[in-house]
Amino acid sequence: MDLSTIGNGHGGKGLLFVISSVSGGGKTTVIKGLMGALESLRMSVSHTTREPRPEEVQGRDYHFISENLFEEMVQGDLFLEWAQVYGRYYGTLRSTVDSLTGNGLDVLLDIDVQGAMQVKKREKDAILIFIVPPGEKEQERRLRERGTERDNDLEMRLEAARQELAFIHEYDYSVLNDDIKEAVSAVSCIIRAERCRNRA
Amino acid sequence: MDLSTIGNGHGGKGLLFVISSVSGGGKTTVIKGLMGALESLRMSVSHTTREPRPEEVQGRDYHFISENLFEEMVQGDLFLEWAQVYGRYYGTLRSTVDSLTGNGLDVLLDIDVQGAMQVKKREKDAILIFIVPPGEKEQERRLRERGTERDNDLEMRLEAARQELAFIHEYDYSVLNDDIKEAVSAVSCIIRAERCRNRA
Repeated sequence: MDLSTIGNGHGGKGLLFVISSVSGGGKTTVIKGLMGALESLRMSVSHTTREPRPEEVQGRDYHFISENLFEEMVQGDLFLEWAQVYGRYYGTLRSTVDSLTGNGLDVLLDIDVQGAMQVKKREKDAILIFIVPPGEKEQERRLRERGTERDNDLEMRLEAARQELAFIHEYDYSVLNDDIKEAVSAVSCIIRAERCRNRA
Repeated sequence: MDLSTIGNGHGGKGLLFVISSVSGGGKTTVIKGLMGALESLRMSVSHTTREPRPEEVQGRDYHFISENLFEEMVQGDLFLEWAQVYGRYYGTLRSTVDSLTGNGLDVLLDIDVQGAMQVKKREKDAILIFIVPPGEKEQERRLRERGTERDNDLEMRLEAARQELAFIHEYDYSVLNDDIKEAVSAVSCIIRAERCRNRA
């Protein structure tokens, strides 16, 4: 073992973290807090075929591309993970992640359960973190507060959430998000601890 | 999976941490810092047959017992780990650890490599952390500064240190101790992260 790599991730290579939650789990706020706290952490920007929301910026929030192009990239096996959610494609390019970790940066993927399971299969060293909302009631309140959902959508999302929660045991870590500061600090600790972990 | 146990260690049960280093690795200072920082963390007080040092208190630093009694307790299989170091016995009673973890407290064992390997074999869920001194020179300086060693002892300890360092890859985590505050904070993070870890 080369002692000079201690506390330095995986022999100088960056680590790959996957963070998932259920809709309304507070994941976006946690990730914002993380990005401010951890210098060497980078988000991987996903590709998607959905329409940008008004506040979203091409290349910063997502790479918005056509369905046709997305499907060709799937055929070319360019994605580390991809999924269809509510009829739209979302995917993470393998090359985006590799270029960051190869340069010693840790990468955070903000993806759903479907995508996380694909990453887990393809990248054995990926570290999976699930943000758990304090309860379904609280989660429903958060969804309603966001006010972007029709009642029908809301019920669909809550059902999806229940199904996603069943995958928690496939994740390496679960972080309860009943206090945003505590949740950010717990995930920061997980990232820091993983940098100290001895790998075979 | 019972969501109420999230972030709460191993289903409400405390976790067992083992912390080792080489002589002069700065482990004692790290542990002092940890005990001040983490509320639910407890040291398990070991039994030993060596003489107490002037500043040591019976039952706080060690349980000082006779060689005879120690050997009888070994025969009775009461120890989670025991070892002979520089001609003296040191051991951790299984019952001490179980009573703490059973009451939801995390336990820290301050033991050497020999002991850590026994714990690893007997307690699959134990989490092993190695404190790595920044370099052998620095480590020698620390040993000399302590001023309690004759030159002969010093050489013996340095050779032992080199042998112990070879066991790092058996530990779950390595923490470089080139800055004491950073090292304490890294170990705190490891403990906190392990509380969020999903266990089978």
